[in-house]
Amino acid sequence: MKKPNMDQPHSKLKIIPLGGLEQIGLNITAFEYEDSIVVVDCGLAFPDDDMFGVDLCIPDVSYLEENRDKVKGYVITHGHEDHIGALPYVLQKVNAPIYATRLTVALIDKKLEEHNMLKTVKRKVIAHGQSINLGQFRIEFIKTNHSIVDAAALALYTPAGIVVHTGDFKVDYTPVYGDAIDLQRFGEIGKKGVLALMCDSTNAEREGFTKSEGTIGKIFDDIFGEHRESRLIIATFASNVDRVQQIINTAHKYDRKVAVEGRSMVNVIETATELGYIQVPENTLVDLNDLRNYPDERTVIITTGSQGESMAALSRMAQDIHKKVTIRPSDTIVFSSTPIPGNEKAVDKVINELEARGAEVIFQDVHVSGHACREEIKLIYSLVKPRYALPVHGEIRHRHAQARIAKELGYDSGHILMLHSGDVLEIADDGSEPKVTGQVHTGTVYVDGLGVGDVGSAVLHDRQHLAEDGVVVIALAMESGTNQVLSGPDIVSRGFVYVRESEELLEDAREVLEETIEELQDRNVNDWGKIRQALRERLSGYIWQKTKRRPMILPVIMEI
Amino acid sequence: MKKPNMDQPHSKLKIIPLGGLEQIGLNITAFEYEDSIVVVDCGLAFPDDDMFGVDLCIPDVSYLEENRDKVKGYVITHGHEDHIGALPYVLQKVNAPIYATRLTVALIDKKLEEHNMLKTVKRKVIAHGQSINLGQFRIEFIKTNHSIVDAAALALYTPAGIVVHTGDFKVDYTPVYGDAIDLQRFGEIGKKGVLALMCDSTNAEREGFTKSEGTIGKIFDDIFGEHRESRLIIATFASNVDRVQQIINTAHKYDRKVAVEGRSMVNVIETATELGYIQVPENTLVDLNDLRNYPDERTVIITTGSQGESMAALSRMAQDIHKKVTIRPSDTIVFSSTPIPGNEKAVDKVINELEARGAEVIFQDVHVSGHACREEIKLIYSLVKPRYALPVHGEIRHRHAQARIAKELGYDSGHILMLHSGDVLEIADDGSEPKVTGQVHTGTVYVDGLGVGDVGSAVLHDRQHLAEDGVVVIALAMESGTNQVLSGPDIVSRGFVYVRESEELLEDAREVLEETIEELQDRNVNDWGKIRQALRERLSGYIWQKTKRRPMILPVIMEI
Repeated sequence: MKKPNMDQPHSKLKIIPLGGLEQIGLNITAFEYEDSIVVVDCGLAFPDDDMFGVDLCIPDVSYLEENRDKVKGYVITHGHEDHIGALPYVLQKVNAPIYATRLTVALIDKKLEEHNMLKTVKRKVIAHGQSINLGQFRIEFIKTNHSIVDAAALALYTPAGIVVHTGDFKVDYTPVYGDAIDLQRFGEIGKKGVLALMCDSTNAEREGFTKSEGTIGKIFDDIFGEHRESRLIIATFASNVDRVQQIINTAHKYDRKVAVEGRSMVNVIETATELGYIQVPENTLVDLNDLRNYPDERTVIITTGSQGESMAALSRMAQDIHKKVTIRPSDTIVFSSTPIPGNEKAVDKVINELEARGAEVIFQDVHVSGHACREEIKLIYSLVKPRYALPVHGEIRHRHAQARIAKELGYDSGHILMLHSGDVLEIADDGSEPKVTGQVHTGTVYVDGLGVGDVGSAVLHDRQHLAEDGVVVIALAMESGTNQVLSGPDIVSRGFVYVRESEELLEDAREVLEETIEELQDRNVNDWGKIRQALRERLSGYIWQKTKRRPMILPVIMEI
Repeated sequence: MKKPNMDQPHSKLKIIPLGGLEQIGLNITAFEYEDSIVVVDCGLAFPDDDMFGVDLCIPDVSYLEENRDKVKGYVITHGHEDHIGALPYVLQKVNAPIYATRLTVALIDKKLEEHNMLKTVKRKVIAHGQSINLGQFRIEFIKTNHSIVDAAALALYTPAGIVVHTGDFKVDYTPVYGDAIDLQRFGEIGKKGVLALMCDSTNAEREGFTKSEGTIGKIFDDIFGEHRESRLIIATFASNVDRVQQIINTAHKYDRKVAVEGRSMVNVIETATELGYIQVPENTLVDLNDLRNYPDERTVIITTGSQGESMAALSRMAQDIHKKVTIRPSDTIVFSSTPIPGNEKAVDKVINELEARGAEVIFQDVHVSGHACREEIKLIYSLVKPRYALPVHGEIRHRHAQARIAKELGYDSGHILMLHSGDVLEIADDGSEPKVTGQVHTGTVYVDGLGVGDVGSAVLHDRQHLAEDGVVVIALAMESGTNQVLSGPDIVSRGFVYVRESEELLEDAREVLEETIEELQDRNVNDWGKIRQALRERLSGYIWQKTKRRPMILPVIMEI
């Protein structure tokens, strides 16, 4: 790190969150110093219910595109979609090497492979404790715990001071795989003097400590012990490698064969097994097709679908449209998960369907969170003792909750920096107050099918309108340059009313259109734009009066 | 009650649930004996997220229409929408008198007034403890507790035996208004010998006892005591009269003025005050417009919107589009509610918006449920000791949970009757086993605007399709009786792509259509149906290939 040169104006560290501060997902932050930009995480978000047809959301990275030459690399904290999911899209715009821990790189590789980008993008595996130099930055990877293994916090050594970014984390003293979070290193770095702490806010509203992943093993043991006569079907998050390990361990102990179902689950287990993150005892894993060779009570199926995703394996089993698994009253289904907010009804539906088939469903207390609760957040603050608190990762309510924790710990409001996505926070190395000095363009880009960004708010608004009351097309052929109607008006509707039972309404609507056309002809209106508008307005008014609905009305005039 | 005549074949009691056994909502059950049908409850359900444009759902009552002459009356257990909301629609098909307690009738009256039906429908107020005779039935109203006052359980004295229907209930030893549930009467009726118990399942998955509504008073006291400098804005369910009473009491104690906001809240408070269910100390209630005459810390606003409903008062405040209330950082907003499943994200959104304005939001532990938990359900079973358990009111998972409670209490599976909506359960008076002897037509009728039943699964399916990828209209004018194109093909799309940025795609699509038409002409295809189909298929294939989307394609051919 160079010392400030008092002859020159000081350069400043810029922290620019490009997403992730208003919601769960879209995590991406640019750290900039002079000619260097380092990007931390590059996540997607799943669409809200009213984003019809949208497959996923990615961050708008115009700012990176404009500063393409400065971007030294992407540093990724862990392998969850909200931290890696936008990489294939963003890398197509701004290519730079990716740095992450081993499992994280392996999961990114899978993604790049799907997009045929393995040859064009550099990836480098970094071990916990290791540092990398990227332009003006040195970045150290620190071991943490999370609901996916190989999660890392980052210490960014910048000319303006050290910034610690926790990534998503919890404090797990008894993790299933590998070491506990490296609290000593947090303390050691804290002792050096930390400028700012960017800490995970997800569980900042929850009291106490998050339970250890290890506690779930005991719960599985109880469930297996109490259900010796049932086939067990256990749904969990595909990426929760430790959870899968514990299911496998328990199955082995109770002498059951394990089959894995659901594409993402199979993928993750394959990857994790190859890399040694999962240890499968010999003769434990079998193909789903071979399960029939074993009595039900000697089998376990680990499956996707814990969030009630309609196309996931468990949902298909629940609806009895799964090709290989039929739910029986003797089955016990375990949700080793909690519904992510917004998925409650979908999960509920699957539970009801399973119960309707007579199966027993266990859905409470077979899960622990991967995020730090209030006491863990206090612990990290107390180790790192940052000058400034920058709560990140969460909705506004969660980040505010972390701000309140910081206040409890004695931070005054001048030292708690509540940023918005797009804010440019400048921090000098001279001890002056950090300031938000500007805004860069940010936003959400919708991915729908192959289209990236071709669906925007106008298209979504139309979809919402169409969803609400359907569409009514008015078709009409007119003589070129005149107001003479050669054919029509015809009415075609979809999603508006059940046509067979509404013939009278539609016939009357046609008459309203005919009257409108006659009136327009009487008034010698020749402007087809005006004719379209008049038809739309009259029909809309008529339909509203008769039905209190507002379908989208599309007048189409053919020119002959 | 007449004795069975051994010379004749025995008549049987029929219990026919016409809704409500697969979901929360649509509660309606027909009890039939010979020439008499009594209908218990007549509720609506709120639409699922994928029922686009549907305002509300009501039960299909074809069975009642077919047996119109037998229907002696509607007996309503309490005034919640899922028990009274379908009355205006169902009464238009099958008119019969309504019997309910005082507040329940008052709320039904409001509803009938809106539908201009006060003159055509008879209503009769029944007191707790009172009985009515309806055809072959005698029906007694029994005092219970619930999250709305004046809730009743019913004892139906039928020639086949006594059926006890709990309605929605909890056991509240210290209710805010009126008496605790009449446990003695449940015991007394139980001693007579009860054929079947139809018990609320909503909370059957929850351990223990539901807390008393009275406990909320202490919590309000703490909140008021700890927020003496804030304006308080408290959102709760409009129909929870006792909750409103406790807010008013606390406000009075802390010398604050109370204003009420939100149409349904104003309505319910008016009705409840008129009938004496709410006691408002003098000079406590003020008009929202007059609140400005008092300092913030001397005021409370009670508002609708506790479920995040987008048009409710609190949501408008949160978005800063409320005409009279602007949220300030000094405000404290209290959610005296929990999100109803499916509303979590909407509530979350409002909390985030309020927090973003700097207000403090309290949303945990300021609510108690109105439904009985496991221990209360056991209590009712132990008092009533029915021969048969018929779990009602809840999703399948909830009813199964009650069935498991019954099992714990010693009922074998032959005495736990798990019905489905539409089942005809027949019970004789000779002690023989009850049997499901048939099915009547049931289902959900969608109300959309003024339309009742004109939106069905086909229309909804179209709306879902339109929502997903929008609509593409192919317009074309052809010479009558030939395959000669006089104009077009033109393409008009909505909700598919952003047209200005997709001109090339749409131009190419037009060319695909022109090629298709030429091919059809070359093959001398004259059948316009076939032409339409070919255009749809070719365009659909082209669009899928280019975008991986499937918009609805509507070919419209004008005949010249």
